[in-house]
Amino acid sequence: MEKWASEVQTKNLELRFRISEFIHAEKSEFQEIVVVDTLEFGRMLLLDGIVQTTVNDEFVYHEMITHVPLFAHPNPRKVAVIGGGDGGVVREIIKHDSVERVVLCEIDEAVVRVAKEYLPEISCALDDERVEVLFTDGIEYLKKVQNEFDVIIIDSTDPIGPAKGLFVKDFYASVYSALTGNGIFVAQTESPFVFRDILKSAYRSIAQVFPVTRLYLATVPTYPGGLWSFTAGSKTHDVIAPVNEKLADSITTKYYTAAVHKAAFALPKFVEDLIENP
Amino acid sequence: MEKWASEVQTKNLELRFRISEFIHAEKSEFQEIVVVDTLEFGRMLLLDGIVQTTVNDEFVYHEMITHVPLFAHPNPRKVAVIGGGDGGVVREIIKHDSVERVVLCEIDEAVVRVAKEYLPEISCALDDERVEVLFTDGIEYLKKVQNEFDVIIIDSTDPIGPAKGLFVKDFYASVYSALTGNGIFVAQTESPFVFRDILKSAYRSIAQVFPVTRLYLATVPTYPGGLWSFTAGSKTHDVIAPVNEKLADSITTKYYTAAVHKAAFALPKFVEDLIENP
Repeated sequence: MEKWASEVQTKNLELRFRISEFIHAEKSEFQEIVVVDTLEFGRMLLLDGIVQTTVNDEFVYHEMITHVPLFAHPNPRKVAVIGGGDGGVVREIIKHDSVERVVLCEIDEAVVRVAKEYLPEISCALDDERVEVLFTDGIEYLKKVQNEFDVIIIDSTDPIGPAKGLFVKDFYASVYSALTGNGIFVAQTESPFVFRDILKSAYRSIAQVFPVTRLYLATVPTYPGGLWSFTAGSKTHDVIAPVNEKLADSITTKYYTAAVHKAAFALPKFVEDLIENP
Repeated sequence: MEKWASEVQTKNLELRFRISEFIHAEKSEFQEIVVVDTLEFGRMLLLDGIVQTTVNDEFVYHEMITHVPLFAHPNPRKVAVIGGGDGGVVREIIKHDSVERVVLCEIDEAVVRVAKEYLPEISCALDDERVEVLFTDGIEYLKKVQNEFDVIIIDSTDPIGPAKGLFVKDFYASVYSALTGNGIFVAQTESPFVFRDILKSAYRSIAQVFPVTRLYLATVPTYPGGLWSFTAGSKTHDVIAPVNEKLADSITTKYYTAAVHKAAFALPKFVEDLIENP
């Protein structure tokens, strides 16, 4: 019998993946966690039925949410990740020699445990000695931190359930305070094709808090609409190019290059219009 | 009862669109033609069950396959389109004041008829006085033409059925001969995520024929994998930037800008690897 995993991307759009094997399912305190092996994209993690990452295309999202802010910063030493319990962002961060400490703040301990057991390609850096994993609410954590991190990355689920508070202005103000004087933050801000209102609202809120606000794009095949947005807020530096292109091209990646970094900020006209007319 | 249109994108991947209304279906000499109204992407044209275009996202594909070669050419006057019976490419071509004549070579008369009746937003320029529509095999047509067109655009279906012969070296050689001395051609060359072999094969064949060969990308939500590739072959001009950026930014578009044109050639590392190791 054929087995398929289905994601209801919007109420009018559904993406279905043929699966070879059902690997794991559990209900944590926060969400339903499922791992399956798909034939098109390899092993896949779903939270509450929403595709979070697959082994075959995870590199796009993890590289682009990480290397853009880290290479736009002249010397990132301390980095915080809010969410991101699968470990993909942490794996990319520790490719940067300048980084001395990474704090991962994941509300759901079960996501980290499942990723460590079933997604070793993605979670492999969570035990690195520079990495500290906290199982706590990122919103509460950042409220207590001042002038601490050079870069903060918000690797959240969609703004429903536990991640809802990660898309509002009060939270971005906490992020601002938690950053050092030339700090940079990035959040995933959803799809410009199918989640336009979330994108516009997040961008507008970030722009109210940060002097430099920039949207950039990458294409993640397993996310709704394919085209995915990230919004960077920065205190002083612009983020549209790496500080050191040679350094940016020196790390091993599958998607990111210095040229891709710069190109990601060349927005299609309809996306420009979305953020210029919030 | 809920109604859905389903596209089997690969044997392991299926995209489903909720539809509000079933508009038209017919079996032509060449293929099954279906038009439905989807709730997420508006009206949609399917050929043999494969999504060709939707009213809400067609602008990405049609603008990027058209304006890149036309703005990379210093003075495109005569343009041929092979395939493209929906008229979307022609609509973009006639935005260029330099263009004096457009020949659309569509093998299936029924596609043009259906597009004119049910997709007026896309087919609206097919009756323009500069446009000639030929219902004939593009492969045979180009064999008989020498040194005629400044730009040739291959707007084909996937390389199965009638479009198979549009992805082989002999055809690209005919395209070369049909172009003027500084001519440029572009073909859609499928998805770097889910149709890598087709992309590699097409790129390799084009590079055997054209002195300048370049791959570029755009994101089309309703195409498999989201990320879509186009390959340009050129006799003399490079195509990685518009000749006149101010002119390129002067036309009305939803996706294309001069900056997007240049950014589309910044390839993710894994795509670079695909075409460097054919």
